[in-house]
Amino acid sequence: MSQHKVIYDTDPGVDDAMALVFQALHPDIELLGLTSVFGNGTIETTTRNARYLAAKFAPGTPVARGAAAPLRRAAPEPLAWIHGDNGLGNIKLDTQTESALDPRPAHRFIIETVRAQPREVTLIAVGPLTNLALALAEDPQIASLVKQVVIMGGAFGTGGLLGNVTPAAEANILGDPDAADGVLGAAWPVTIVGLDVTQNTIMSTAYLASIRDRAGEAGRFVWDVSRHYEDFHMKSARLAGIYVHDSSAVAYVLAPHLYTTRSGPVRVLTDGIAAGMTIQKPVTMPVPAPNWDHRPACQVCVAVDAPAMLSLYEKTLCGTL
Amino acid sequence: MSQHKVIYDTDPGVDDAMALVFQALHPDIELLGLTSVFGNGTIETTTRNARYLAAKFAPGTPVARGAAAPLRRAAPEPLAWIHGDNGLGNIKLDTQTESALDPRPAHRFIIETVRAQPREVTLIAVGPLTNLALALAEDPQIASLVKQVVIMGGAFGTGGLLGNVTPAAEANILGDPDAADGVLGAAWPVTIVGLDVTQNTIMSTAYLASIRDRAGEAGRFVWDVSRHYEDFHMKSARLAGIYVHDSSAVAYVLAPHLYTTRSGPVRVLTDGIAAGMTIQKPVTMPVPAPNWDHRPACQVCVAVDAPAMLSLYEKTLCGTL
Repeated sequence: MSQHKVIYDTDPGVDDAMALVFQALHPDIELLGLTSVFGNGTIETTTRNARYLAAKFAPGTPVARGAAAPLRRAAPEPLAWIHGDNGLGNIKLDTQTESALDPRPAHRFIIETVRAQPREVTLIAVGPLTNLALALAEDPQIASLVKQVVIMGGAFGTGGLLGNVTPAAEANILGDPDAADGVLGAAWPVTIVGLDVTQNTIMSTAYLASIRDRAGEAGRFVWDVSRHYEDFHMKSARLAGIYVHDSSAVAYVLAPHLYTTRSGPVRVLTDGIAAGMTIQKPVTMPVPAPNWDHRPACQVCVAVDAPAMLSLYEKTLCGTL
Repeated sequence: MSQHKVIYDTDPGVDDAMALVFQALHPDIELLGLTSVFGNGTIETTTRNARYLAAKFAPGTPVARGAAAPLRRAAPEPLAWIHGDNGLGNIKLDTQTESALDPRPAHRFIIETVRAQPREVTLIAVGPLTNLALALAEDPQIASLVKQVVIMGGAFGTGGLLGNVTPAAEANILGDPDAADGVLGAAWPVTIVGLDVTQNTIMSTAYLASIRDRAGEAGRFVWDVSRHYEDFHMKSARLAGIYVHDSSAVAYVLAPHLYTTRSGPVRVLTDGIAAGMTIQKPVTMPVPAPNWDHRPACQVCVAVDAPAMLSLYEKTLCGTL
């Protein structure tokens, strides 16, 4: 019996795809569904990609189409220079391989799936948090009915960075800061896997080549899909490899002991030059802070055993767990 | 010949006083003047304390009274629970020991002193940055005429914290965020010594007792003035000792090699729940950031050799350099 029943809220996206393969191949994860959201590409692109990925690696898994734009602002430009024009590193997609689309919008799919299996569903959300915010708005009680929410997003400075798309904001949170502030303020158990740990977990070119050579079709896909993404890392950060963003959220679900977390409420700035910034008040902080103190604590990942995380991913793909 | 001609812009304040003793006793520092500013206490309190400290430890050093309030908001409440009702840990002050007051306001004193010795004057600013902002407003050219500006203030998260008085703001910067954003945006060489390093530099009770017993009158003063301050640290942070805030700025001037710095422009948030937050765009960050990119780089301290810093302070006070 799988330990983790997961709804994967995603905007594929190269690292989204790599994290989907990770979930599909790990025996402890049962994918209940994929929900798409705008972000790395338009909602058309990310939904098409989610359907492609589901058909290829998790056949039979429902895919529900989600939000096309943030709650209260225009959709951002697709990040084509990072994820390719097709959102999947410009690899050739066999468009006949596409799973059927669930008739429900993503937020309704989330609500109904959570309600059908109370306290059993984990939400792994690796794009802008619009779908989760819409689900909460329509049915606030789901907050007490999910098992946990694990979010890839944000940055808290402990790894040296407060953002990647601006000096103050990580891409997923900046994608919909209003949604993020709501989702992080809801009374569900949230863990945030942000740049503090994801940019300290790096898949080198050699690591990816090893997976290509040892993990069959999945390994070759991971290699192919990450070529454009790796070029971006080399050009922007002189990195011969890639940061492990979305797969780190999956790793947290599977092996939380690999992560050091800090507890405390988190706010997201929604306006001004630092819009999208995530700010935690650690529970150890002794001063009153009215804008934080009434909110539930989130767990923020501040350190990771990166070699162990990389080993977990590799063994999952190679079938050597 | 002293290496460093210093104007010390200060809001004494217990750690301000300890940093004044440090400067007064180090042979490489020539104190050209003290300028007071509101902050840890009212301007009346901090000016009285500056005059007291100058008379006691740096006789003949001019003291100029500075701003009573921030540029565009009301003066904050004095931090009496941290620094005592008299700003100096409630030690008994001999009020007959007070140096004369320079007739000029602090910002004019700064301008005229800098202009009298172009490219020779170091500003060490350890309170709200109002005096420096007023000096820049009246005479922008001083930016190119100072040797360097070293500021105790701000927090960048690399030490785990983004603030101490709020989850997003350090006290000095929150004291006047508008002034800080201006001062950090001016074209003078600025180094920021913030919580990232000051809260990783701790004078333990035993360390302070050793200085008390070995550093004569200065040592006894440092012990006496820090009793209330140490109580605050124990109550708020369960720390048997004190964080070394203002003296770290002095140590940076004397021994910059003890600090690891990161280069890049810094903005200060002036509004909203994160007012007072300092956000750097590291020069290594590859994305455009229009709200940062037109500003000069500041050097932000992100790591410190704390034992060496503590040794420098101790040897200075004990006269064993």
